Amino acid sequence: MLLIKVGGGAVNQQGVVKDIKSLNSNSARRGVVFVHGASKARDELAARLGHPTKRITSPNGMVSVLTDREALDILVMAYSFANKRWVEVFQENGINAVGLSGADGMLWQGVRKKHLIVRENGRERLIRDTWTGKVEKINARLIQFLVESGYLPVLTQPAISSEGLINTDNDRNLAVMARELGERELVVLFEARGMLKDIDDENSLIREIKKEDLPRMLDFAEGTMKKKILGAQEAFQAGVKTIYWGDSRAKHPIRDALAGRGTVIR
Amino acid sequence: MLLIKVGGGAVNQQGVVKDIKSLNSNSARRGVVFVHGASKARDELAARLGHPTKRITSPNGMVSVLTDREALDILVMAYSFANKRWVEVFQENGINAVGLSGADGMLWQGVRKKHLIVRENGRERLIRDTWTGKVEKINARLIQFLVESGYLPVLTQPAISSEGLINTDNDRNLAVMARELGERELVVLFEARGMLKDIDDENSLIREIKKEDLPRMLDFAEGTMKKKILGAQEAFQAGVKTIYWGDSRAKHPIRDALAGRGTVIR
Repeated sequence: MLLIKVGGGAVNQQGVVKDIKSLNSNSARRGVVFVHGASKARDELAARLGHPTKRITSPNGMVSVLTDREALDILVMAYSFANKRWVEVFQENGINAVGLSGADGMLWQGVRKKHLIVRENGRERLIRDTWTGKVEKINARLIQFLVESGYLPVLTQPAISSEGLINTDNDRNLAVMARELGERELVVLFEARGMLKDIDDENSLIREIKKEDLPRMLDFAEGTMKKKILGAQEAFQAGVKTIYWGDSRAKHPIRDALAGRGTVIR
Repeated sequence: MLLIKVGGGAVNQQGVVKDIKSLNSNSARRGVVFVHGASKARDELAARLGHPTKRITSPNGMVSVLTDREALDILVMAYSFANKRWVEVFQENGINAVGLSGADGMLWQGVRKKHLIVRENGRERLIRDTWTGKVEKINARLIQFLVESGYLPVLTQPAISSEGLINTDNDRNLAVMARELGERELVVLFEARGMLKDIDDENSLIREIKKEDLPRMLDFAEGTMKKKILGAQEAFQAGVKTIYWGDSRAKHPIRDALAGRGTVIR
């Protein structure tokens, strides 16, 4: 099985779907599990509904979104909507996709964080009304059944906890899935050519990273790249051997990533 | 298998879920397939997003919603959201629900209507920008696998056609499912005690209807009841023997319906 994750920014949907179609017809691959984001759509819907996405910074500089009750509702709407639109495009191309959230069949079972500590204007503050958490267990049997029966699982937020739906991190969930499914390769696509030395210069692409160098990378990475690096570190701890980072906007996003046209981490 | 459908109006969610839980622990039943609506939530979201739900009337007096492109987007958001909230409540109560739209795994495969004819102010008009249709085939194998593996399938709009996602009618889809799954009993819950002689008088409940009398009922039924009657007619044609209509707001919506406290059609 190949685990593929696409971020919630700009993405060439038809390109992604067509690449998966040609992977599927290549008998050497034993099926695909697809994970997608919807952060851009979520932010747009949140703005339309008068509850714009708020971002918070943890004491160690990690930026994430604040998922209060209404933000959780908006997230569930936006991600579920994106999920059905992905399924539609897959079906259009003859791939029998099954779109699921992490709550369905307890696919992504996690623990809700009791509170968050955020840094604001140099001071630390406790936030309680937050519906975020961390996935600890997956329903590997359901995923395996779907793949073995010829379906493409199309997975997205939210996950589920004993306190209900929670927002979790797709990059870290990918690592948990790799561990529990015993997978060795990940494809991670986002709105950039790969890891850039200089975030403002698309020509500063880093072609290869040794997994030992990831902690060092964490220091100079900005914004959401920090989370991708954390996710990658967890994936290597989970037994993954190679991660392909690539451009979700490319003509052939997955084919290019697997050919090493983005950043390869091993 | 027992097919249960709950409408998109006011509903006692915990009551429904607890009734299904006690059905599940009754070994005589071979599992449940659950279908839900979200019309009220859709109308609220549509109003918030500045694209209020429009209703249209067919030449034979059937009232339905106009599903133009933006209405389809809103419908997908609202129904998918309701779907994940139903799954959450089921999981809370120890039932491993899997929420799916009709697009997932081609569960509800239908045909899009090329156009609609509507009656407005006594005149007929053709509408083309409509994303509605009729389900013709279901993926019975996927439903059977889920039920046999101990999952509760939680199904909702949209369905899928060769032209993409479409809005279809849950009552009629229930009939198609009964036919293809070979089921003999349906439970249909909505925001009323059952079929009323007088829509404004909750005490005018009709306890029993013979299926032969349904065509006659169609003449004096109002609003969404017309569709329920059509769905019931199709269900009997599909081999169903008994349909239990009941109140989705009751303390025990399903138990009461099966005990004949609403309207029983046979």
